[in-house]
Amino acid sequence: MVLDDLETPALVLDKQRLVVNTAAMTQRMKYLGVGLRPHLKTAKSVDVARMALDGNFGGVTVSTLAEAVYFLDHGIRDITYAVCIVPTKLDAAAALSERGADLKLITDNPEAARAIAEHAESHQVLVEIDCGEHRTGVAPDSNALLAIADTINRSERSRIVGVLTHAGHSYLCRNREEMEAVADDERLAAVTAVERLKSAGHDCSVVSVGSTPTATFAKSLAGVSEARPGVYVFMDLFQAGIGVCSRSDIALTVLASVIAHRPEVNELILDAGGLALSKDRSTQALGEDCGYGLVCDVITAEPISGLVVAGVHQEHGQVTAPSPIPFERLPVGTKVRVMPNHACMTAAAHDTYNVIDGGIDIVATWDRCHGW
Amino acid sequence: MVLDDLETPALVLDKQRLVVNTAAMTQRMKYLGVGLRPHLKTAKSVDVARMALDGNFGGVTVSTLAEAVYFLDHGIRDITYAVCIVPTKLDAAAALSERGADLKLITDNPEAARAIAEHAESHQVLVEIDCGEHRTGVAPDSNALLAIADTINRSERSRIVGVLTHAGHSYLCRNREEMEAVADDERLAAVTAVERLKSAGHDCSVVSVGSTPTATFAKSLAGVSEARPGVYVFMDLFQAGIGVCSRSDIALTVLASVIAHRPEVNELILDAGGLALSKDRSTQALGEDCGYGLVCDVITAEPISGLVVAGVHQEHGQVTAPSPIPFERLPVGTKVRVMPNHACMTAAAHDTYNVIDGGIDIVATWDRCHGW
Repeated sequence: MVLDDLETPALVLDKQRLVVNTAAMTQRMKYLGVGLRPHLKTAKSVDVARMALDGNFGGVTVSTLAEAVYFLDHGIRDITYAVCIVPTKLDAAAALSERGADLKLITDNPEAARAIAEHAESHQVLVEIDCGEHRTGVAPDSNALLAIADTINRSERSRIVGVLTHAGHSYLCRNREEMEAVADDERLAAVTAVERLKSAGHDCSVVSVGSTPTATFAKSLAGVSEARPGVYVFMDLFQAGIGVCSRSDIALTVLASVIAHRPEVNELILDAGGLALSKDRSTQALGEDCGYGLVCDVITAEPISGLVVAGVHQEHGQVTAPSPIPFERLPVGTKVRVMPNHACMTAAAHDTYNVIDGGIDIVATWDRCHGW
Repeated sequence: MVLDDLETPALVLDKQRLVVNTAAMTQRMKYLGVGLRPHLKTAKSVDVARMALDGNFGGVTVSTLAEAVYFLDHGIRDITYAVCIVPTKLDAAAALSERGADLKLITDNPEAARAIAEHAESHQVLVEIDCGEHRTGVAPDSNALLAIADTINRSERSRIVGVLTHAGHSYLCRNREEMEAVADDERLAAVTAVERLKSAGHDCSVVSVGSTPTATFAKSLAGVSEARPGVYVFMDLFQAGIGVCSRSDIALTVLASVIAHRPEVNELILDAGGLALSKDRSTQALGEDCGYGLVCDVITAEPISGLVVAGVHQEHGQVTAPSPIPFERLPVGTKVRVMPNHACMTAAAHDTYNVIDGGIDIVATWDRCHGW
């Protein structure tokens, strides 16, 4: 079975690039002296998880309880659920712990902290810190930080075990210097917060930071215990666009077929549209707008003549280029591979990874979990 | 079981609105004297299909072969696969026919037509006509139209059975008059094309048009045999924004929980982000930009104080409003419902519909198919 035998659209994962990406991050975290707790919201695959965990301590990050269930079912126990917990999800979280998960929850809210404290089961909790993204999290110098820790540690069963922060604003950086600076803000926010908790008498061991740009460019992670990058396993055009990787590091592509030609408007149509590629337009904010993805050769995975997916409908991708499209090279039925803007969003619509190993042979099929 | 018992995020479908939307379109197509062949790419659910088919002739439209397989498995035989066929998918199409499907394929390409003609199995084919959207399709006055029909009808096994067009450019309309005009362009393109085919000696019975805006506003469908609207079953903020429906017709919402407050920036965070809502931003082009969706009361499904999902991350929705958010009414853990911009895209990330019947009781759980 080779790429050309697959029905399209289909997700293609190049294991050769995946190995390099995961090994590089593992090595980097070792060099910085912190644990790597990969965020598996990108891959949602136990096979990818095993590669990302190779040489690391075994902890993972998830973005949904469905991911937590899936990874626990596959024997991964040390799990941080990195989205603020709500009281109605505490029973489900407790059920995971009951089944053997070493589960860490996060909160930034005094009411949620009260609900955790009053819940019938015990929970390990990280206080979420805002290091500048301004999405969720309390400020490292806030009263709320200590109040939340007090509420939980005064409870009979549950415990604060540390802090967690995510420098999502690293996605606003456009060069290495900016990413280094945000990485230090991220580190400093987490370290400041945990020092305050310790000074107030709270026993904290987890100091968790992480995003792919900051993990890639941090000069020091002194005082940090672990990092949680996610998209680094696959990389994508957005990461390449901000300088985190090069395009040749991108391990994930969508195999698609040319289904129509419109030479009169220099356009061809693929059977990969808004569902197969996602409607993510994150590269729009960058120097080179890649539309909904770049069209690449099926064998080399090299971009073809500036072909970009400029528009999408549900199952149609409209491809154009600044120069005349070589239609004769791309007859109807030709397979191409589309590099995605945002690997997390693109992978989400697909059930399986068709795994290649640098070539065109399908060497494995890996499943993914989805839903909530 | 009531809405408040569901884990979030979750898809909620109000059957009461679904009944009204499907019955209204059925009645309208009867009034215009054409068959209704609902496009099931929106719902991907046999339960929704049954309601949409009630009182109609039983034919459906699909956007993937996976949908065709799913609906055939549920006893629906008359299926039009309304995305240009590529040669590599002909075997899968033939397998469906072999299993009893009355399957119609579409093409706009002479090479694909040759592949169909040379394929070992018989196929029923519609020529796709471009009525002004300029996505796929041949012009109604083109030589390609006759060439494609000739190629297929000269084959031993396969037959041209008609034409199909889709006025996707109706989504560019902003009022009733514009939609009426596009509907007439759509009708005229299909009728012109089929008359040319008939004059050339091709026996054609199918004259297929359709989009929700044009089906809703067409003044006449004279000469047309069937229409293929899709999103009308659920409606959404985009359709409401261009005047096809009112917001109170929208049957599909995403149930979400408030997971964090940020009063200092007048923002609250939901556990429904880019995956649960999709990254569709179609209302950006309209008078009222609804961000990634409008936040509604869980019981009434009425928008709350102008709350809009202004930003999304994978599992976070950032909600803001022009006036101060009533945080005291919306403590962490509160459930809300988000009206989507584009129902087709939003439904796609979910496996099941949690069906209500105007109230808050879950009266059924309906599955969906997905993938390709």
